[in-house]
Amino acid sequence: MKKILVIGAGLSSSYLIKYLIEQAAENQWTVTIADNNMELAQAKAHESPFALAMQLNANDQFELEQTIAGHDLVISLLPPTMHVGIAKICIKYKKHLITASYVSSDMHHLHVEALKANVLLLNECGLDPGIDHLSAMKIIDGIKAKGGVIDVFKSYCGGLIAPEFDTNPWNYKFTWNPRNVVLAGQATAKYLENGALKFIPASRIFTQTETLEVNGYGAYESYANRDSLGYIKPYGLEQAHTVLRGTLRKKGFSEAWNLLVKLGLTDDTQLIEDADKITFRQLVSAFTPGTSLNNLEQRVCAFLTISPDGELFNKLKWLGIFEDTPINLREATPAAILQMLLQQKWKLQKGELDMIVMQHVFEATINNRKQHITSSLVVKGENETLTAMAKTVGLPMGIAAKLVLNNQIKLRGVQIPLSPELYTPILNELTHFGIVFNEEGLD
Amino acid sequence: MKKILVIGAGLSSSYLIKYLIEQAAENQWTVTIADNNMELAQAKAHESPFALAMQLNANDQFELEQTIAGHDLVISLLPPTMHVGIAKICIKYKKHLITASYVSSDMHHLHVEALKANVLLLNECGLDPGIDHLSAMKIIDGIKAKGGVIDVFKSYCGGLIAPEFDTNPWNYKFTWNPRNVVLAGQATAKYLENGALKFIPASRIFTQTETLEVNGYGAYESYANRDSLGYIKPYGLEQAHTVLRGTLRKKGFSEAWNLLVKLGLTDDTQLIEDADKITFRQLVSAFTPGTSLNNLEQRVCAFLTISPDGELFNKLKWLGIFEDTPINLREATPAAILQMLLQQKWKLQKGELDMIVMQHVFEATINNRKQHITSSLVVKGENETLTAMAKTVGLPMGIAAKLVLNNQIKLRGVQIPLSPELYTPILNELTHFGIVFNEEGLD
Repeated sequence: MKKILVIGAGLSSSYLIKYLIEQAAENQWTVTIADNNMELAQAKAHESPFALAMQLNANDQFELEQTIAGHDLVISLLPPTMHVGIAKICIKYKKHLITASYVSSDMHHLHVEALKANVLLLNECGLDPGIDHLSAMKIIDGIKAKGGVIDVFKSYCGGLIAPEFDTNPWNYKFTWNPRNVVLAGQATAKYLENGALKFIPASRIFTQTETLEVNGYGAYESYANRDSLGYIKPYGLEQAHTVLRGTLRKKGFSEAWNLLVKLGLTDDTQLIEDADKITFRQLVSAFTPGTSLNNLEQRVCAFLTISPDGELFNKLKWLGIFEDTPINLREATPAAILQMLLQQKWKLQKGELDMIVMQHVFEATINNRKQHITSSLVVKGENETLTAMAKTVGLPMGIAAKLVLNNQIKLRGVQIPLSPELYTPILNELTHFGIVFNEEGLD
Repeated sequence: MKKILVIGAGLSSSYLIKYLIEQAAENQWTVTIADNNMELAQAKAHESPFALAMQLNANDQFELEQTIAGHDLVISLLPPTMHVGIAKICIKYKKHLITASYVSSDMHHLHVEALKANVLLLNECGLDPGIDHLSAMKIIDGIKAKGGVIDVFKSYCGGLIAPEFDTNPWNYKFTWNPRNVVLAGQATAKYLENGALKFIPASRIFTQTETLEVNGYGAYESYANRDSLGYIKPYGLEQAHTVLRGTLRKKGFSEAWNLLVKLGLTDDTQLIEDADKITFRQLVSAFTPGTSLNNLEQRVCAFLTISPDGELFNKLKWLGIFEDTPINLREATPAAILQMLLQQKWKLQKGELDMIVMQHVFEATINNRKQHITSSLVVKGENETLTAMAKTVGLPMGIAAKLVLNNQIKLRGVQIPLSPELYTPILNELTHFGIVFNEEGLD
C-alpha cells in the first residue's frame, strides 16, 4: 500500500480527498488527512477504511518531518509561503510533492536539489494555475504540431456564482479565500500587447478591463493578472505579439470595486488602531474629503463622481458601508475591515452553487491562414461543500498524484504541468468529472 | 577621555562629525567614524587628532559588538532597519544610543530592557523627526503653562532648494536620500480634522494638498505625512480637534508628481525584468493606455487629461521620460528606474545650497481668547557638503550626545526628544548655529 499525505483539510480539500478515497481500493493506497484542526480532518476522512485523520501542527518542524517521512507522496494545501519548507523536507526524505500554488523564487531554487534526490515537486497543479496550463498547452502544442505560429494568447479565469444563485447587485459571492479576493489587483500588472510591454499600476487595474462573452452565460469582464510575461517562455509563446492573463467577473463588478479602491478601503498597509471605536459610516467618512457625517452619501457621490440614483451607488450602499454599525475589530487594515463586511454580504449560502469559468483565446497563423480559436470551460458546483472551485483545484492534484504513484510521470525537479505526459492523462480523466473544454475554431 | 562612535559617514554625517570634532578638546572626547567605506570615513575625520576613521562592516555581528563595546556612546546613521540590532548590542554593553530615525515597533519593545540596563536609546533626534519635536513641545508646554488649550496643531517640514538655486521646473533638487523622496506618500496618511479621523490612501496623497505661505519665501504646499495620529498622545494634544503633519514642497510640485504616480512610475513592488532592453520612452508607453510610440506624448496628455502646452506637461518632458535613451538597469522597479533618472535631473550641483523650511501652526484658547501661533524656521546650507539638511539632522544628535556624556540627561529607555530636559538646551545651542525659530502670535 502506498501512502498519500494531504496537509490541510480546509475548504478547497473536499473534492481532492473525496477523489483520493474513492480511488484508494483500486490503486492500493491510503490517505492521511492532516490538519491542525482534528475535527476538520476527521470530517473529511468520512470514516473511510482507507483514510486516516491526524492532528498536525505544520509549524512544528519535527512533527512535520516525522509525518512526511512516513508517506510516499505529499499534497500540500497550506498557504503558499509554507511550501518551500515542506519541499525541503520532501527532498530530504525523497518524497514527491504536489501543490496548487505558484512557484515562488525560493521554490524555483530547489530545482537542482530536487533533481539530485530524484524527486518531483509539482506546483501550479490546481485550477488557475493548473487546468489553465493543461488546457492551454494542449492547444499550443496542437497548433505547433501543424506548423502554426501563435500570434495572440489570452487566458481568463474566474471563480463565480452560478447564474441561478446570482442574487446580489455585485453578481459575486466568495467561493475561495476572501482575503485573496480583497487583495487582488494590488500590484502592477504586466502583459504584452501588439508587441509592446504593457504595465497597469495597482491604482488603475480595475479601470482597464476587457469585455467578453462566454457561450450562453452572458457578458463578463476581465482585469489583468499580475504577471502574464512570465508565461511567454514556459508556454513557448516567444512569437506571440499579445499575451495576457486575466481574472473574470460579471460585467460591472470592476467599475464598482474600483470605487472601493479609490476610497482607500482596499488598503492593506496601514493599521487603524482603534477601529473598534468607530462605525463603518465613520470609516467611509474618514476616507472621503470633508468631515460632516450627515451628508456623507452626497460627499461620497461627489468625490467618486457617481449618481446617487445609479447602480454604482446602489452597489456601495448594499454593502452596508454607510451604516452606523460598529466595526468589531480592534486593530485592522481597511482591507481586513472590508473583508469582514464582505464575508457577511458575499457568503455562499447553504444550497447555493458556485461556478468556474475559464476561457482561452488564441489567434494563430496555420498554413498562412489566420485562425481564431477559443477554448472555454464552465463548471458548476455540486453543493456548497463540493464546490466547482474545490473540484477544479483538487482533481488535477489528485489525478497527478495517481500518475506519479503509478510511475507514469518521469519528470523530476521543480515543475509546473506543461508537458503532454501530464496534460493528456489529466485532461482525459477530468472529462469523466464533467470538466470538459469546448474548443471552437480549431480545424 | 570619553569615546563616541559614529556609525555611517554618508551625506548626512558631515555636520554632525564636524561638530563632534570641534567640541572634542573642550569636552574631552574622541570620535570614531566607522563606515564600510574607509575613504569616506577618513575624509570625514579631516586628520583631526580627536578623530579616528575605521572600516566597519555593520552586517558582521561580531565586528559590530566589538566596536560598540569599546565606546561610551553610539550615534547611528545607518538605515533605520539596522537600528534595532544596534540597540540590542548597546543594551548588552550598557552604551547609550542616539539616532534620527522613527521609533519602530521593534525598537519600542526594547524600552523595559533599556531601562534595566540604565541605558538611553534616544531616537527621532534629527530634523524631522527631531527639531520638529523640540520646537513644537516648547510651544505646547508654554501654552499649557498659561492654562491654555490647544485646538489645532499642524506641522510642516521640507528639505528644499535655496531660492537662488531653484533653477528647474519642479522647484526641487535632492538634498537627502533620493529613495525616500521617490517612495514618499506610498501608504495611507492618517490625521485628525475637526474632531474626525481622516485617512488619505496612497493613490491620492498628492491630490489633497494644503497651501501655505512662509515669511517672504513664497507659496508652498504640503501633503500629509503617514501617521499624524501617533503624535497626539506623546505631544499631549488629546484636546485638539485637528492634528496634521505634512511635507512641504514648492507650490505645484504635488500636482506634477501625482502624474508620475498615476502613470505608475513610482511603483516599487513589481520588478521589470528586462529593463535594460527598453528605453524611458518605451517604459512610459508601457504604462500608458495604447501602444503606438509615435503619438506617445498625445496619449500621455489624453490619459492624464493635461494640456501638451501646459506647465504640467513641461515638467514631465523636462525629466526626459519621453526620450529614447536606454534604461541602464537590468532588473528594477519603476520607482528605482525613476529614481535613477531623477538623480541626474535633480542633482544638487557644486556650489548650490539647499534650504530647510519648517513651520508649526497652532490654534489655542488661552484665557478664553483664541490665539493663532506660528513658529517658522528657515535654514540654508553652507555649501554642497555642509548642507542645511546635514546641519539640522546632525546638530541635534551631536548636542544630545554632549548632554548625555556630561550627565545632564536623566532619561533612560527608548525615548524621543519631547521633554524640557532635552529641548531647552538643544534649542538654545542650535541658535548659535543660526537655527532660530521665528515665533509669531504668542503673547
